[in-house]
Amino acid sequence: MREESQIIEGRNAVLEALRAGKPIDKLFVLDGCQDGPINTIKREARKQEAPVSFVSKERLDQLSETGKHQGVLAYGAAYAYAEVEDMLRLAQERGEAPFLFLLDNIEDPHNLGAIIRTANLAGAHGVIIPKRRAVGLTSVVARTSAGALNYTPVARVTNLSATISDLKKQGMWFVCADMGGETMYDLNLTGPIGLVVGNEGEGVGRLVKEVCDYVAAIPMRGNIDSLNASVAAGVLAYEIVRQRLKG
Amino acid sequence: MREESQIIEGRNAVLEALRAGKPIDKLFVLDGCQDGPINTIKREARKQEAPVSFVSKERLDQLSETGKHQGVLAYGAAYAYAEVEDMLRLAQERGEAPFLFLLDNIEDPHNLGAIIRTANLAGAHGVIIPKRRAVGLTSVVARTSAGALNYTPVARVTNLSATISDLKKQGMWFVCADMGGETMYDLNLTGPIGLVVGNEGEGVGRLVKEVCDYVAAIPMRGNIDSLNASVAAGVLAYEIVRQRLKG
Repeated sequence: MREESQIIEGRNAVLEALRAGKPIDKLFVLDGCQDGPINTIKREARKQEAPVSFVSKERLDQLSETGKHQGVLAYGAAYAYAEVEDMLRLAQERGEAPFLFLLDNIEDPHNLGAIIRTANLAGAHGVIIPKRRAVGLTSVVARTSAGALNYTPVARVTNLSATISDLKKQGMWFVCADMGGETMYDLNLTGPIGLVVGNEGEGVGRLVKEVCDYVAAIPMRGNIDSLNASVAAGVLAYEIVRQRLKG
Repeated sequence: MREESQIIEGRNAVLEALRAGKPIDKLFVLDGCQDGPINTIKREARKQEAPVSFVSKERLDQLSETGKHQGVLAYGAAYAYAEVEDMLRLAQERGEAPFLFLLDNIEDPHNLGAIIRTANLAGAHGVIIPKRRAVGLTSVVARTSAGALNYTPVARVTNLSATISDLKKQGMWFVCADMGGETMYDLNLTGPIGLVVGNEGEGVGRLVKEVCDYVAAIPMRGNIDSLNASVAAGVLAYEIVRQRLKG
C-alpha cells in the first residue's frame, strides 16, 4: 500500500474529495467564513471525521500551491488498492500458507478500519472488499486501522463469490462466519484459508455463503443476536491463528 | 442505582429496550416510515403501551445525540448500574463459575458498547468499570451494545484494584491483557475468572496489573502496535470461552 500526500484546494475539489470518501488528514478553513458552500464542507468534514482547523487568510495563502484556495484547503492521503495476486505473492515471500480476509459489504468505516488492523496483527496477507455497496478506504478507515493500512494490502473486486471460486481453484479454502454453522473450535482452519465476514445487518450474503467450504459459528451464550462485526472477525481470525500456531 | 432519563437511538437499541421491558416515556418514529423493522417497533411499543409520536426527519435529527437514529428514537429511564454482588449472584443462579469483565478506563463509548455486547454473548455475568475517567452508560454505549445493556449488569466501582483484591479473597482469578504477558493459549483460563482490559492508549494501569494473577498476551504477528480495545477484549474473552467449553 502506497501513501502519497496531496493538497486539495478550492471549494468544489475539497467537497468532492470529502464526498468521495477520500482520506483527508487535515482540513484548513478560513476563520470566520460562514457561507453556504463552506458550511456544506464543514458538515461533510464532520461526517467523514476529518479534523478541521480554522486559520487566517495569510496562513491559507502560505499553504496554497495554486493560489486559488477559495478559503478552503485539505491535505489528503491517497491509499492505493492492491491486487489479489499481490497478497498471494506476499504469502509466498513469507513462506506461509495464504491467509486472507474477505469482507462482504462492511458498511461502517470504523469496523473496516478495525478489521484491517486485526488482519495485520493476525498475520493475514490481505483484505478483499467488494467494489459496490461497501465502504472504501476513507480517512476514518485509515485512522481506525491505526496504521495497518500502510502495511496490509486491500484489494477491491467486482464479484466476491467469483474471486472466491477463483482462489479455490488455486487451492485455498474458505470459511464464512454465520450463526447457523459448526462451532469454530470443531473445524480444521489450518492451511491456505480465506475468512469471509458479513456485514453488520445481514451477515454473509447467500451467494457468497454457498461458494464457501465451511460455515463457522462463534458460540453465543447470551440474550442478543450477534457480536459487533469487527469483534466477530477478530474472534474468528484468532481461532485460525491458534490452530496455525498449534499445527 | 439511580434513574435518569436517557435517549435510546437506532432500531436495534430501541427494539431491544422495548422487548426487555425497559420503561419508555416516549417513542419518536419517522413519519411515513413503514418498513419491517419500524413496524415491529410500533407493534412492540403498542404492547408495552409506550406513547408513540410520528415526527419529521428534521425533528429526529434535532433530538438525536448520536446522529444515527435510523428513524427511531426513544426517551427511556436511564440504565441503572448494578452491584458487583448482583453479578456473583447471577453466576450462582446459573450454576456457573463467575466470569466478569473489568475495564480499566475505556474512553470510547463505541468500544464500551461493543465490549458489553461481547460480554453478553460470551456468557459473562457482568462488566465492571471505574467511576472516574471512564465513559459511562450513554446512549452511544446503549446503541453499540445492541441491546446487551438490558441483560448484562454493569457496575461502577471507585477503585478497580481494590475491587480485584476483594474478589480474589472470594476465590476469583484475574487475567489482564498486556503485550508483555504469556501467550493466552498457554494459560489456564478456566475457573472463576475476571478479564481485565485496558484503555485504548495506555493499556492496563500499573496498579491494576500488579494485582492481577496472570498477564495474557494475544499473539501479534503484524507491523503495528495493538488491536482495537473491543477486538482485543473479544479475542481474550473467546479464549476463555474455548477453555471453558473444553474443560
